[in-house]
Parts: sequence; C-alpha cells; structure tokens
Amino acid sequence: MITFETRPDTYHHWKLTVDGPIATLSMDVREDAGLSSDYRLKLNSYDLAVDIELADALQRLRFEHPEVHAVVVSSLKERIFCAGANIMMLRGSSHGAKVNFCKFTNETRLAMEDASAHSGLKFLAALNGICAGGGYELALACDEILLVDDGNSAVSLPEAPLLGVLPGTGGLTRLVDKRRVRRDLADYFSTLVEGVKGKRAVDWRLVDAVAPTSRFKDAVQARARALAATSDRPAGGPGITLNPLNPTVTESAVTYSAVALALHRDKRTAELTIHAPTGPQPSTPAAILAAGDQYWALRAFRELDDALLRLRVNEPEIGTVVIRADGEGDAVLAIDRTLVAHQSHWLVREIIHHMKRTLKRLDLTARSFFAFIEPGSAFAGSLFELALAADRSYMFHDDQEENVVALSPMNAGPLPMSNGLTRLQTRFLNQPEIVAGLLAHDGPFNAGDAEDAGLVTFAPDEIDWDDEVRLAVEARAAFSPDAMTGLEANLRFAGPETMETKIFGRLTAWQNWIFQRPNAVGAKGALQAYGQQGRPEFDWKRT
Amino acid sequence: MITFETRPDTYHHWKLTVDGPIATLSMDVREDAGLSSDYRLKLNSYDLAVDIELADALQRLRFEHPEVHAVVVSSLKERIFCAGANIMMLRGSSHGAKVNFCKFTNETRLAMEDASAHSGLKFLAALNGICAGGGYELALACDEILLVDDGNSAVSLPEAPLLGVLPGTGGLTRLVDKRRVRRDLADYFSTLVEGVKGKRAVDWRLVDAVAPTSRFKDAVQARARALAATSDRPAGGPGITLNPLNPTVTESAVTYSAVALALHRDKRTAELTIHAPTGPQPSTPAAILAAGDQYWALRAFRELDDALLRLRVNEPEIGTVVIRADGEGDAVLAIDRTLVAHQSHWLVREIIHHMKRTLKRLDLTARSFFAFIEPGSAFAGSLFELALAADRSYMFHDDQEENVVALSPMNAGPLPMSNGLTRLQTRFLNQPEIVAGLLAHDGPFNAGDAEDAGLVTFAPDEIDWDDEVRLAVEARAAFSPDAMTGLEANLRFAGPETMETKIFGRLTAWQNWIFQRPNAVGAKGALQAYGQQGRPEFDWKRT
Repeated sequence: MITFETRPDTYHHWKLTVDGPIATLSMDVREDAGLSSDYRLKLNSYDLAVDIELADALQRLRFEHPEVHAVVVSSLKERIFCAGANIMMLRGSSHGAKVNFCKFTNETRLAMEDASAHSGLKFLAALNGICAGGGYELALACDEILLVDDGNSAVSLPEAPLLGVLPGTGGLTRLVDKRRVRRDLADYFSTLVEGVKGKRAVDWRLVDAVAPTSRFKDAVQARARALAATSDRPAGGPGITLNPLNPTVTESAVTYSAVALALHRDKRTAELTIHAPTGPQPSTPAAILAAGDQYWALRAFRELDDALLRLRVNEPEIGTVVIRADGEGDAVLAIDRTLVAHQSHWLVREIIHHMKRTLKRLDLTARSFFAFIEPGSAFAGSLFELALAADRSYMFHDDQEENVVALSPMNAGPLPMSNGLTRLQTRFLNQPEIVAGLLAHDGPFNAGDAEDAGLVTFAPDEIDWDDEVRLAVEARAAFSPDAMTGLEANLRFAGPETMETKIFGRLTAWQNWIFQRPNAVGAKGALQAYGQQGRPEFDWKRT
Repeated sequence: MITFETRPDTYHHWKLTVDGPIATLSMDVREDAGLSSDYRLKLNSYDLAVDIELADALQRLRFEHPEVHAVVVSSLKERIFCAGANIMMLRGSSHGAKVNFCKFTNETRLAMEDASAHSGLKFLAALNGICAGGGYELALACDEILLVDDGNSAVSLPEAPLLGVLPGTGGLTRLVDKRRVRRDLADYFSTLVEGVKGKRAVDWRLVDAVAPTSRFKDAVQARARALAATSDRPAGGPGITLNPLNPTVTESAVTYSAVALALHRDKRTAELTIHAPTGPQPSTPAAILAAGDQYWALRAFRELDDALLRLRVNEPEIGTVVIRADGEGDAVLAIDRTLVAHQSHWLVREIIHHMKRTLKRLDLTARSFFAFIEPGSAFAGSLFELALAADRSYMFHDDQEENVVALSPMNAGPLPMSNGLTRLQTRFLNQPEIVAGLLAHDGPFNAGDAEDAGLVTFAPDEIDWDDEVRLAVEARAAFSPDAMTGLEANLRFAGPETMETKIFGRLTAWQNWIFQRPNAVGAKGALQAYGQQGRPEFDWKRT
C-alpha cells in the first residue's frame, strides 16, 4: 500500500532549508530509498517516492512558511541536477502504475505553477549540472531557469530518441505554450539526446540565463532575491503546522475525522463521505490561524485529497465512487462566508487554493463519481462542488421538500476547474445568464427545483430511488473501465483548454497511448531495450 | 491501394440531388460495396468507402453547385438513418487502419462545419429513423438536427456500453462543446444503448426538434428553406467542374500536374514536391471561373490533398517526408495577390478555404515533414505555409543570396490552423509584434535573414548542407514512429485549443489508446465479443 504523507525530517530525497524569504529545496536522491528495491535511483533520478516528498515540501512551504517568498530548486549532487524519471522503474511498472505516476508528478508540477500564480511563491530552477528529461520538466515548471555554464551541463528531453516515449510531465506543452520555444526548435531539441547548453539554450528560450561556475551561486542568490521581491506573501510568520492525518485504516475502509472512504471491492465500488463541520467555527483570520490544520475547511479537504490519492494507486479495480456529504448544509455555507470574507488573508487564501487543487484532483481521477444527495446531506456551497464535479448526481425527491442543495459565492469563482471555468460555468457552457440566475437565487433548492434548474441530473422519488441508484451504480461498474476513463476525460472538460488541460488531455492521452505500444514497452521496444545489449526493433508503421 | 477520387454518378452509397437552393444527400449504403468483402454494410453502417463518397459530395457542392444554400442529410432506408461505423469492419481493421479511418471521417465532419461557418452552406440532419453512433456523430456535425417522432426512432451513442470504445468521430466533444448538452446528461446519454427519443431528446439539446412521421417531410423542407435563407452564397451558378486528377502512378511515385510524390520505401522517406505556377495566370474572378479546376491554386492543392491521403493510407511505413516547392516564388505571390483581391467572390473564397483545409490535412498527418528550401525553390506566400507547417525547415545558405523565401497576405490570416491561429502566430506564440514585423517586411528574405527572423529552422551553407540534411532525415527515420507521432501531435498545436483541436488531440488520443486496450480489441474485449456468444471479459483496473 502506497501512502502519501511524509514530513521534512523523514525525507530521504530532498533537503528543505529556509533562510528568511528564500527557501532552498535540494534534490539529493537516496539510491536505495525508492518505492521498490527493483531499481536504484541513480543520478538523482526519481520515482513516486521522490515526488511524494516534493509535493509535501510544496504544501508545507505554503502553509508552514508564509515568510518564504521564493524557492530555489536545486541539487546537492555534484554536476547533476536531475536525470529525470528512473528508467528501470518505468520499465518495471505496469501500465496503470506508469499512468498514475505521471498524473501525480504532473499535479505536483502544476501545484508549483499554482503557487506562483496565486500564492506569491516563486520558483527558481538552479541547474547546477545535467538536467535531463523529467529533471528539465521540473525546471520548466519553475518561474525561471538558471543553468550553470561549465561547458558540459545541458538541458535535454531525450525521452523520444532514447526511450521511444514522450516527455510526459508537461515538457512538450510547456516548451511551446509556456516558454514559447519555437515549434521547430522544440522539435529539434526534443530529438537531441545530448541536449542544448550555454548561449544556445538561452537563445532558444530553453533557459532564462546561464552563469559560469564561478558566478553561479551568486547568480542564483541574486535571481532568487529578485523573484522574492515580487511576492505578495506576508513579511513574517507564523505559519501553521500540517500534522499527520492519522486515518484509521482497515481492510475495507479509510476513516478520517471528516472524510470516510468505504471500499466494496466485490462490487468494484466505493463510498466517499464528507462530513460537514459541527459546532462553532472560527470566523476571523486570527481564529483560523489558531485552529490551524484542525480548521474544517483545511482538514476535510486534506483528508479528501489523501483519500483520492489512496484510491487511485491502491484500489485500481474500484471503478465507481458514490459521493455523499452529510451534516448541515448551513454549516458549510457559514464556512464559505468566512472564507470569502477573508480571502485576502494569506492563510485563508492558501486554504481556498488547497480546496481548489483537491477538487481538481477529483476531476482528474479516472473513476466514475456519482453524487447521492439524500435527506440529511450537506451539498451546499463548496461541498456542492463535489456534486458538480461528479459525472452524475442523484437527488432524493422527498415529499417534505426538506432535502435541499444550496449555492454560495464559493461556487462563483474561487474554485475553478483546470479549464479556467467554474464548475457551474462548465455545466452551463457559454450561458452566463443561467449561471448568474442560479447564483442570484435566494436560499436553497429543493429536489424538484434543483432538477428543473439543471443543478442535479436526476431526482427520483421514494418509489424509484432505491432501484434507480442501485441500477445506475451496477451498470456503471459493468462497463469497460477504459471506455469510462476515455468518456469522462472528454465530457468533464467542456469549454476552453488551458496549458493545464492540454497537459492532462492531449499530452497525457498520447503518452498513455505510447505507454502501451510495443515500440515502447514490447520485448524489443525502446523502453525495454535501453541500456541492454542490442537496439530496439520497431514496427515502422506510422499511426 | 485505396484511392480517394470518385464522382456522383459512380457513388454506391449516397444519392445527391439538387433542387434549387436545396440539395439532398441521401445515405443508401450498398451492403456489398464496402472496401472489403469481409463485412457487409448493413443498416446504413459505413466504412471508409462510404465516407470517401461523402467527402466528395461535400467538395462538389462547394465548387460545382454555388446555387445550393442548404443540404439535407438524410437516408433512403426506411426507419433507419444510419447505424454508424460498421462494427465488423472495425473489428477486422488493424490499429493503424482504425486510426486513419477515424481521422478521415473527422476531417469530413469538420469540413461540413467549415462549409457552414465560412461558405454559407448549411446542413440539416433529417433523421428519418434510428441514428446510432457514427450516424449521430454525422448529425452532430450538421447545423440542425430534426428527428422523426415515431415512438421508436432515437439518437444514441452506444459505443462505450456496447463496444467498449468511444464515439470517436467528435461525438463527445460536440455534445458538450458544440451543442452544450449538460455534461451529466451527456454522461448518462453516452452509456445508454437504446438512446433518447422524442421530447427528452429536445429537452436535453440532443436534437433541435422532433416531428411526427406525418409532418416530418414538411418539417424538413421548412427547416431546410429557413437554413438556406441564411446563406450568403450566390443565387445561381454556374459552378466549376472538378475533373479527375489523373495522376501517373508507378511503383515508387505518384505524379500529378503540379505535385509529385516520390517514395523511397527502403529509407522510409518520401519527397513531396509542389511546382509553382508557370505562364500567365487568371487575375479576375471571370478568368478563374473560366480556368475552373485547372486554375493552379485549386489544381495544385487538390493534388496535394490527394497525395497526402494516399500517403496516409497506402504508405504506413514512410515516416519522414521532405517537402520542396520549386519554380518561381514570384508566380506564387502573384496568385496570392489575385486570391486576396477577390476573396469575396464565391469561387475564390472556395479556393482559399480548400487551400486551408489541405494545409490542415498536412498538419494532421502523422508523418514528420521537413521542408528543404534550396536555390530555385518557390517557398513564397501560400507555398511558404508548407515550410511553416513542416516540423523543421532547412534553407540552403548560398553566397549569392539568391535563395529566398517570402511572405504574402496569405500568411496573415486566410489559411489558419485548427487552433484558429495562423502558422506564423503559432510559431511566434503571443508575440504579435514579431508577426506584424515579419508581415510588414518589404521583399523576400535571404537565408541569413530568414534564419535570423526565425522563419526557418536552420540555414546550413554549402559546406554543411549535404551532410546536415542527410543526417537529419536519417536520424528522424530511425526514431520510434509512435514517439514521433506523439511528439508532433503536441508540438504542432501550441496556443489555444478549439473544438477542432480537441477532437484531434484529446478525443482522438484517448480513442487511439482505447483502440489498443485488450478490453476493447483483445480476444475477449468488447469489440471482439460484440454479436458473438458470450460477454466481454474485462481487466477491471482503472487507468
């Protein structure tokens, strides 16, 4: 079982140091501390274990170190920044493991860009040596890239020529879309095993600057200070501590304080339940700071995030997830009011962006989600985003009209999807008048109104409910899991595409295709042949 | 060998009739006239042969029938509109054949939308009966969908639940992006084998209207007349005739009047040469009408289009194509001046849009293209788009500075890519000042200037040219063909995504992935199991 919680004092692969407004995140991968003993993580190559620590460090910088304004991403290994994803690990991984690995690393890279865009946390890639493949893709996710000019150190994307696969962690997309590297130069560069160094790397926009070895350290510090100066984060702390989640894990359940994941492996389904807050809640930034990681909006979404990650990697056969929100919808709406009122406070801002990233993680999880909205549920405001994120929602149509859903300002902008739109905007694509009308609605929607308004998919009454929801889940769980993944990947993201959706749509879909092709993963494919005797043997047919 | 030329009087599967401003394109598939005798095209199901005729009919309506303002797409089979792509055909096709089939049918559907958006030719899908899968996807490509309300006829996308594959001809994308069907309803609909009919189909936006059998014919005529009334096409003809291209086909070459495709199968490369016009050219709409399909801009691009299609389906192992343009660049610039000056004339408009569609076909062809710009070449204006479309361009740097390239107003807008940008805008993404500066440049660019301006990738001199271009082609031809396909699909389309790029990027990439998965194409996969004894057996792991 893979778990995703860690903390800096137990990191194997990264060293996190904080010096006033500048943090340094140094890669120093321990060869023998990968997820499996089947491979050694040489030359700062990485596997999921390394990336889990990186994701943790990013999260802690946001919450625990508000005084940090810029992060230097570098390496403690001499003349090596990072060699990219470990090839032996990729070779030995199942298709699903490769896909999940790439998805998580993509989310982590995008979280860096999210921190830069929305949280005033800027990143400088300080490339002290060779920077290949996923190593360069990590650099591409930073705001600036500084490469040492030592006559040897180059940036490269050798995946296609060496391994017959794509740079799958956003590299191709970021080259042309983010850094505006000319497409023909990007084409040439992406077929060049040895990469590009020095002035040419600058001229082609592959890096922002180079500095000779003797001036590299000073240049890094100067650029880090300049980046830090652009930040709008607070001048000092304190931050809050992200403590362990400590879920209760049994054979068939993972139970947290506000989230519960129940697994029904025989039916290939799971139930994911989020509990609304109970009791008095902090309503000022000072009180939220004092509550720290126990504040419901942070705690519940950290738990949800962890549950989704566990589900992805540990329960591949569970294809359909029923989402419930239980408790008082009004309590969620009160939380939302507090969040919106204080969204300019650094911690509230972090909490909202964390909720946003967690909901994006759900959008990008290749499982079918059905929201069941039953009496006693709390699908209101930010928790109603779960119903909007679901592939379908079923709302129990009670005679008493007590079963309700509600919107809040949190549905109107703070929690956008990867496509840059809110879930309501995506649902009612290019129909802003409908979205505005729903947001202006005063009070909750009962089941009939919610169905009429298009806020839920179906609203069966008492006579039909049991059969209808049971059959819906059974039917879903019986379909080809691949067809459902493809269906959802296309229907969930209507509207504009962004660099983010391009990475998860176009780039990832092609990479997943290649990850199945004999030319890559067959016995004589490039990924298998690499480093072995003999060259790969290709089926030359172009597709 | 598959060829793409046909004409209405030899159609097997469609009947094209023209009645004043309204044409009717009626599907009446001949079961035994598919590309292979391995399957029978029952219930108006289709294979590539059927779609080649449809593409031909669309082309002829644009050029031969300017008086047609609306097209009714219907069926001559009782109670059956179209059952979609033939399942036995899909089952028996290689992966590459499936992918090429879907790509061509996608291009044909997009050509309908192009005709509607840019050429005043509107489409009404008159669904006289069951309309399933690819049949509904054809309807989705029309401007309006009218469904008979006979208590039985439904629209459906049963691919995922029945066959374990996606509706791969744009269906999922058009549901949510074009018709703004709510994503949860789209999810439900796309898992419903029996589809949706009557009022619910209208309420969910799946069709625009329904009409009972007794009033169906009148309703079709009324809606067709209303659509025709929105057209800006001329009131009458004459059109021009699209005559056969009559290329000379040998074992290793396809040679047309203005285009030559030379095949080097041993090296897995081809040379594609376009000849600039020679001699006096028409410069008025009347003269262009008189020249008809012999006018260079139409003839050369029809030939180029045909060459690309033959290359795709008949030469799968040729991975790298060298593009040359020979002749006088000034002659191309003169053509461009004529086209731009008269672009509001219906025929000139059609010619320009045809050039645009052909260049898009090149962008979407999964082969590596290198443009070689040598002395005596004609990479100017609209032919320079070939160099911009290529993955790389190599320009011979001659001491005499006689080897030049040039831009024209045709590079400034009339020939956009699928992403909605010109190739110059895509090349210099979000740098409009660079694009404007290049377009304002007076006169041609010699090799040094073109390289400095970023218009070409490399400009080797006489000493380096031979080795550099030879090694570039050899290296390219040695890489994994799958990795190159994925690389190009990501690097060619920087910038915004459109419905069109989503169909070819996201949707197609996922479908290609599924087209390789054992859950679809394995011995017990859904595509294999359909219609056989027994149910499919799935590997339940979600990816």
